[in-house]
Amino acid sequence: MADVAHLVSQAREGNPRAVARLISLVEGAAPELREVMATLAPLSGSAHVIGITGSPGVGKSTSTSALVTAYRQRGKRVGVLAVDPSSPFSGGALLGDRVRMGEHASDPGVYIRSMATRGHLGGLAWSAPQAIRVLDAAGCDVVLVETVGVGQSEVEIAAQADTSVVLLAPGMGDGIQAAKAGILEIGDVFVVNKADRDGADATARELNHMLGLGEARGPGDWRPPIVKTVAARGEGTDEVVEALEKHRAWMEEHGVLAERRLKRAAQEVETIAVTALRERIADLHGDKRLGALAERVAGGSLDAYSAADELVEGLTGEK
Amino acid sequence: MADVAHLVSQAREGNPRAVARLISLVEGAAPELREVMATLAPLSGSAHVIGITGSPGVGKSTSTSALVTAYRQRGKRVGVLAVDPSSPFSGGALLGDRVRMGEHASDPGVYIRSMATRGHLGGLAWSAPQAIRVLDAAGCDVVLVETVGVGQSEVEIAAQADTSVVLLAPGMGDGIQAAKAGILEIGDVFVVNKADRDGADATARELNHMLGLGEARGPGDWRPPIVKTVAARGEGTDEVVEALEKHRAWMEEHGVLAERRLKRAAQEVETIAVTALRERIADLHGDKRLGALAERVAGGSLDAYSAADELVEGLTGEK
Repeated sequence: MADVAHLVSQAREGNPRAVARLISLVEGAAPELREVMATLAPLSGSAHVIGITGSPGVGKSTSTSALVTAYRQRGKRVGVLAVDPSSPFSGGALLGDRVRMGEHASDPGVYIRSMATRGHLGGLAWSAPQAIRVLDAAGCDVVLVETVGVGQSEVEIAAQADTSVVLLAPGMGDGIQAAKAGILEIGDVFVVNKADRDGADATARELNHMLGLGEARGPGDWRPPIVKTVAARGEGTDEVVEALEKHRAWMEEHGVLAERRLKRAAQEVETIAVTALRERIADLHGDKRLGALAERVAGGSLDAYSAADELVEGLTGEK
Repeated sequence: MADVAHLVSQAREGNPRAVARLISLVEGAAPELREVMATLAPLSGSAHVIGITGSPGVGKSTSTSALVTAYRQRGKRVGVLAVDPSSPFSGGALLGDRVRMGEHASDPGVYIRSMATRGHLGGLAWSAPQAIRVLDAAGCDVVLVETVGVGQSEVEIAAQADTSVVLLAPGMGDGIQAAKAGILEIGDVFVVNKADRDGADATARELNHMLGLGEARGPGDWRPPIVKTVAARGEGTDEVVEALEKHRAWMEEHGVLAERRLKRAAQEVETIAVTALRERIADLHGDKRLGALAERVAGGSLDAYSAADELVEGLTGEK
């Protein structure tokens, strides 16, 4: 068993190995998981959690890397959680994914973590919030959560993040795709990357039009900005950071940050509870108590409903 | 609320309306369901529960009807549960399904019940055992459970029955189909119906060959007999009854009946418990306790795992 208190104290002192070890513990549902989470609970909540999402090919990793550079220039500590179920780097992911973000690998103010989701019980929805909490408690001012794919994973990430960035690129028909995927509703900041290519202005206009088609906004409402970038050259990244900080300030001013975090916590608790109940259901087969109850039902001394009540109470009353 | 004790006592005196009412109560998951089941528990267990299954067109209803006649001639009281999700008679099913089994409709020693399964929470696996118990407690010596369809429903019925009859008919390629569907493993008695048609002997031979391909049997093992019938003329039905009674005697001699009923009871309890837990999971959304716990998690005074524990305990500690 790992010494959790020691690991947490080392992580808070900036030891990258301790951070990596803690994420491994929560990701792998180690026996220490509960102790880690209980220890981290009062230490987290200060990081700005930013989700970065978009279709393959829009430049998510490049944009994430550019954002890391921009935040580092501002003296912020940054955590990156790259959630990519199809990545060859996932699974045995190491702290410091040199292949993807080489320039930050030796920066002690940056933690980079690839996270596998395949085959995990509960998947991303289950393990990502725990990893975010580790990075938050370890002193990151900003946690960037990068997801690949469309649909469900975007929605899940939006639920984990304080602020959601949706990335598009010109000439990919992304505008319409985004609308279909319901991505417009989750974006707090939109970025049209590869803005030096033909069609960038058209994509931005189309996006602007579609955003305007939504409900009428009141004076205090957030109007998602559209920022054009060329992430590979770092162009526009400062504007993205500016938009992200404005969004955070707006959320704090209007109580939205607390509201989102409350919703996120509810979702997290629910996911864990559902997973626990599902595991118990799966364990019903071969349960000795079930056998004893079945004998009484078969013998007529107990009815099946009362037996089921006893089983459910027995399953859930224990740890 | 129905007076359950009165209904049960009427049902045991042979009142068909009381039997019908009790089945309706358990089938519809009425508020009285638990009281009904608790009252019936010590009263059931004496009926021989026989499952009758086979592909559409093999003559299941005709065969069931012929079996009813044969058992009535022996002075037995018979319950019939026709589980047919696609039947137009299901749903608002009445006691005495005149369209299908007209000749038995006015016989006070026969209860016939069609049962709908569509849309029911838990389906057949949930409601059939309860209905069987009602017929059993009402004094039926034999309960015939007829199912339509192939695959899952056959397997479920096999789990509910003491003895499983698998029906085939010549010229339908049933032999091979049966092998594919795993039906050979659940059959305790095989019936080749429509034996006056071409190919009946070939079907029986093919079946006999396939049954022989299974594991070697010991001297005390049950070798499923193959009986040829023309159910529409009542030919061979006595032989089927004989095979069923031999199977029951064999089961009692070798402790198999008790074993099967124990397995059935375990399955029933498990199904009810799983249904109850699933309902509670679905209720998690909008739960007030979840909101209160989420506030503590968002505020850092509680970790998500401990919150989930509290939620699960709260959900399952109550009725």
